[in-house]
Amino acid sequence: MSGRYEFASDNVAPAAPEAIAALARFNDEFMPAYGADPVSARAADLVRGFLDADADVWFVASGTAANAIALAAICRPFDAVIAHEHAHICTDETGAPGLFGHGLGLHALKGPSGKLDPAAVAKALSRPAFAHRQAPAALSVTNATEYGAVYSPEELAALAAPLRDRGLPIHLDGARLANAVASGFDPKCLSKVCDILVLGGTKAGGTPAEALVVFEPALRHRFDARLKQAGQLPSKARFYAAPFVGLLEDGALVRHAAHANAMARRLAEAMPFPVRHPVEANAVFAEMDEAALSRLHAAGWFVHRFLDGSVRFMCSWATTPEAVDELAEALKGIA
Amino acid sequence: MSGRYEFASDNVAPAAPEAIAALARFNDEFMPAYGADPVSARAADLVRGFLDADADVWFVASGTAANAIALAAICRPFDAVIAHEHAHICTDETGAPGLFGHGLGLHALKGPSGKLDPAAVAKALSRPAFAHRQAPAALSVTNATEYGAVYSPEELAALAAPLRDRGLPIHLDGARLANAVASGFDPKCLSKVCDILVLGGTKAGGTPAEALVVFEPALRHRFDARLKQAGQLPSKARFYAAPFVGLLEDGALVRHAAHANAMARRLAEAMPFPVRHPVEANAVFAEMDEAALSRLHAAGWFVHRFLDGSVRFMCSWATTPEAVDELAEALKGIA
Amino acid sequence: MSGRYEFASDNVAPAAPEAIAALARFNDEFMPAYGADPVSARAADLVRGFLDADADVWFVASGTAANAIALAAICRPFDAVIAHEHAHICTDETGAPGLFGHGLGLHALKGPSGKLDPAAVAKALSRPAFAHRQAPAALSVTNATEYGAVYSPEELAALAAPLRDRGLPIHLDGARLANAVASGFDPKCLSKVCDILVLGGTKAGGTPAEALVVFEPALRHRFDARLKQAGQLPSKARFYAAPFVGLLEDGALVRHAAHANAMARRLAEAMPFPVRHPVEANAVFAEMDEAALSRLHAAGWFVHRFLDGSVRFMCSWATTPEAVDELAEALKGIA
Amino acid sequence: MSGRYEFASDNVAPAAPEAIAALARFNDEFMPAYGADPVSARAADLVRGFLDADADVWFVASGTAANAIALAAICRPFDAVIAHEHAHICTDETGAPGLFGHGLGLHALKGPSGKLDPAAVAKALSRPAFAHRQAPAALSVTNATEYGAVYSPEELAALAAPLRDRGLPIHLDGARLANAVASGFDPKCLSKVCDILVLGGTKAGGTPAEALVVFEPALRHRFDARLKQAGQLPSKARFYAAPFVGLLEDGALVRHAAHANAMARRLAEAMPFPVRHPVEANAVFAEMDEAALSRLHAAGWFVHRFLDGSVRFMCSWATTPEAVDELAEALKGIA
Repeated sequence: MSGRYEFASDNVAPAAPEAIAALARFNDEFMPAYGADPVSARAADLVRGFLDADADVWFVASGTAANAIALAAICRPFDAVIAHEHAHICTDETGAPGLFGHGLGLHALKGPSGKLDPAAVAKALSRPAFAHRQAPAALSVTNATEYGAVYSPEELAALAAPLRDRGLPIHLDGARLANAVASGFDPKCLSKVCDILVLGGTKAGGTPAEALVVFEPALRHRFDARLKQAGQLPSKARFYAAPFVGLLEDGALVRHAAHANAMARRLAEAMPFPVRHPVEANAVFAEMDEAALSRLHAAGWFVHRFLDGSVRFMCSWATTPEAVDELAEALKGIA
Repeated sequence: MSGRYEFASDNVAPAAPEAIAALARFNDEFMPAYGADPVSARAADLVRGFLDADADVWFVASGTAANAIALAAICRPFDAVIAHEHAHICTDETGAPGLFGHGLGLHALKGPSGKLDPAAVAKALSRPAFAHRQAPAALSVTNATEYGAVYSPEELAALAAPLRDRGLPIHLDGARLANAVASGFDPKCLSKVCDILVLGGTKAGGTPAEALVVFEPALRHRFDARLKQAGQLPSKARFYAAPFVGLLEDGALVRHAAHANAMARRLAEAMPFPVRHPVEANAVFAEMDEAALSRLHAAGWFVHRFLDGSVRFMCSWATTPEAVDELAEALKGIA
Repeated sequence: MSGRYEFASDNVAPAAPEAIAALARFNDEFMPAYGADPVSARAADLVRGFLDADADVWFVASGTAANAIALAAICRPFDAVIAHEHAHICTDETGAPGLFGHGLGLHALKGPSGKLDPAAVAKALSRPAFAHRQAPAALSVTNATEYGAVYSPEELAALAAPLRDRGLPIHLDGARLANAVASGFDPKCLSKVCDILVLGGTKAGGTPAEALVVFEPALRHRFDARLKQAGQLPSKARFYAAPFVGLLEDGALVRHAAHANAMARRLAEAMPFPVRHPVEANAVFAEMDEAALSRLHAAGWFVHRFLDGSVRFMCSWATTPEAVDELAEALKGIA
Repeated sequence: MSGRYEFASDNVAPAAPEAIAALARFNDEFMPAYGADPVSARAADLVRGFLDADADVWFVASGTAANAIALAAICRPFDAVIAHEHAHICTDETGAPGLFGHGLGLHALKGPSGKLDPAAVAKALSRPAFAHRQAPAALSVTNATEYGAVYSPEELAALAAPLRDRGLPIHLDGARLANAVASGFDPKCLSKVCDILVLGGTKAGGTPAEALVVFEPALRHRFDARLKQAGQLPSKARFYAAPFVGLLEDGALVRHAAHANAMARRLAEAMPFPVRHPVEANAVFAEMDEAALSRLHAAGWFVHRFLDGSVRFMCSWATTPEAVDELAEALKGIA
């Protein structure tokens, strides 16, 4: 590949060595299929340990599938899910929630740096339901957010409160939960603030696989059938589970995320353009005009303008300090 | 694992060394995501070469997803797909065609050893459409069949003819196409007898990934968006494509399938119970009563009674002659 | 219209005078839309009185919509509904349950004269659920059946018992409930044996409208939104409700059904061909070969061969004794 | 009913005498069901005559169903429909397009008085499609608009042009098409500017029924099955068709709409509050603060604040000059 892709996203990175090694390590014998294997059991245990929670844990192929299946599990088609207007489910999943959720609605709210405002959530829920609209009946929240901000447990609890009061369910998109944790977020709060969680593996250094964590007991019933119908109960399930074993058993998941976060901070410090959002996870957003972005592209760096109009630079476990410094150098030449 | 799983299915096997090696081999640099990477391009080229056909080739996570997305692409909700009553889409996918196809119907036909009868297909199509029923408007055919039989190109052409005459589409479930090819079936006929093909990787020695091959140009439009919405456009697509590179570039796919087929023939020859279906691929079906099956289970061999009432023994790339002989010995002790 | 349609179905009849009169009667003022009008309230009260039950009552445009919405309300897409193989939802609704139910499955059982066998229902429910199949998780029962047989309250209770034991829901398709009631069935048992009921208006002498009766409190939540999304919350709702007022307020619903049933018995007594099913409601099924049916068609009588191979003759509120006698005469000339 | 509902909407009115009379007129004989009756044929002919066009014409129960089925017919789930942000399909149908369209997207655009801007439509279509978003692939336009504005044939042609250039389909929501026609719009242009049309009956003085007009030949295939599966192929179809016969055969449809439009103009002229949108159809929108609206409600007039913040007054065929004058008087007392 000519060109520099490493800041285009955290999914352009290879898999971390712990993930790849685990694939090979568990490849030496016959095992029951469809998740009844010891690798899936071990990975589920590690996820439960990471979250210090009782939960059913499934491993699925993509974050889009995981999110959409989760939303379909907690909503009916005439419900709407409250989410940030720039949440991945609203902007980057081609309507997957509607496909899996049979037309369920998204109730998009604004908020700084991808964060929802508890008052706005409460207000959306307090409006009288009306037969002619899909009424907000669930919450989807993303941590770390699309803009690299991190919610604290207290902030999540405040968002969750008006839903808890009404007995309504909460989904957490944790595609970058590892980055939030590396930034100080305690994942052990999650069983209290959400009913269903997507714990990202892909962006955290895995091969394509995400953990779908079902805390709420009422949602667990026949989840295997739900996944199978959705094409997400893989036969050779060990290969979805193995990278989680590799990443979780010695702490690589958070360690790699901490590295990615550090690289983002290093880039932010060297950034000659204004930085727009708090750099709490692995992303840096810079205010660059079109001419500057074009020069950066011309110099071979693949990054893109994001929904808020700024340019996103995303670090990963595989981003090297040298790459950050080279990028910073290139940016300085352009600024 | 205690117990002997290796004849329970061909998805209980590990991945073949070529597939695992390819995962590691393509893990050393940053690459564009969502299928724009050189590994996906290389794998698609190899698939096209294998089929000697122009086609768009996508790599998805599971056979259930691949089949259901394919059927949704060729049918509308008020259509029905003609398929064998024991086809995987009818019996083992938890209604995935209906979920992805928004209620599309399945029009199940009987036939020996999982094979459809061309006259029955033609008859189903010739009935006048009626607003109150989902009318047959597409065909799904499986090669090798669930019972280990293999269609010839001529047989497929005969099945396809009444659909071709009416401009109706055809899906081929090739979860075990490699076994059919190893048995003499020429895959180069496929672009003529179907519009969309699922080329199985998982059961052929891969990690979880299937190739979705779109021959028909009219179906190719925005297939990436279709897959993304269905949760099947993975970001780190290289890891879905890599096993196909490993399995296709030096012929391992068919070589492994030939081995699996040979193991099935070896088992069939040694089988003390009546063998029910032609052993043309990697499966042996034996007529065993409940007492015999219980004794086999008690001896630690995990196999199960299939839909036709016989007991299925499935071989894979990883089945050893020794295992076959041990199983045959165990069966003789039981018979 | 040349030809004699009156035995083709009970939906070829005009509306009964009470229904038409009610449409005109409630057409003289402005009223709130979407069911908040006094006609809808009055009709709902009459339905509750007819059933002697607490329930939410909605009026929808067609039986197919009513059934499909009801099934979607009680099932998830990975569930299957147990039903008779010849139930209207299985054979005559073009897959509407799958469309509204997002791919939900139908688990068809055989049984004489359209009746389900309690032992077969219990057996279907007792099989272990399996991720790869849509497991039976609800029951749909039709009274009177498609073959004109009528369940007693005790028979329905026996069917319901294994679902009640498991907390699973029950739908009753009452497209011809009026005929069952006219045959002696007590509708006051229904709140105990089902969770959701479709009370047919169209075939009972109404204009196109059916009552959707939701007994189970947990299902009532936002049913208005569910209907609106399904295109079944009409603005001028009074016109769906009015025929029910006309038919229920002075007993016309059952009185007309009793007439239809009597016409069926009159026909059965005069029938020169073997009568196949019990004549407990408004249908007569006769065993006629193709030559005989052709002669009947040639004589101008529109009736058709049904799923069980016999020929169906359906009476309605509008069937006259003279028409029955003329048909009987024609049949005698053919036999 | 206490209170004055007559300006709350045009669906609070009774049916016009021509519609009710037609229901009774066609109620005197047996007729084939499911649209094969002579009343449906006659109504379809009258619709074709009204539009001066070749088309398949179906009669369905509600505008929401008609719109959603039309959109599902012209889009795939990964497509988005361009529509005005305040179009009925976007704001008042509880996500019905997503339910019937299996998650299809809505691409909402702003524009004055409910009208779309051709440049904005063209711009939306000219953006490169991107797998991660539902790309605009169809247009839905409403005439008259929700704000009582009327497009001219030339304006519709300008909106349609960029879709026609790309071979993309167009839906027209004509819930108030009669009002547009009464305002001078020539309905004979419609076969050129759209592929599928909903011709409103309910708001035009009918009982609940809308005509679904399929101009585009490729969309006509098995439309009966599409409707049946959607619960919209009524058995006693004559009762959906009859009001259209009554309203169309002597011009009552447009005559009543002209009256409704005249009442709106009369109200606009007497309106003491600022009128916000052009009064080209049967609606008047007035700028009233909350205190004024409360006083109006207290005086017994049921009207509501609309999406743009103004208060909507809707006239119908049944609105009398006296009622307009009484309302105007009441408003003057409040202003």
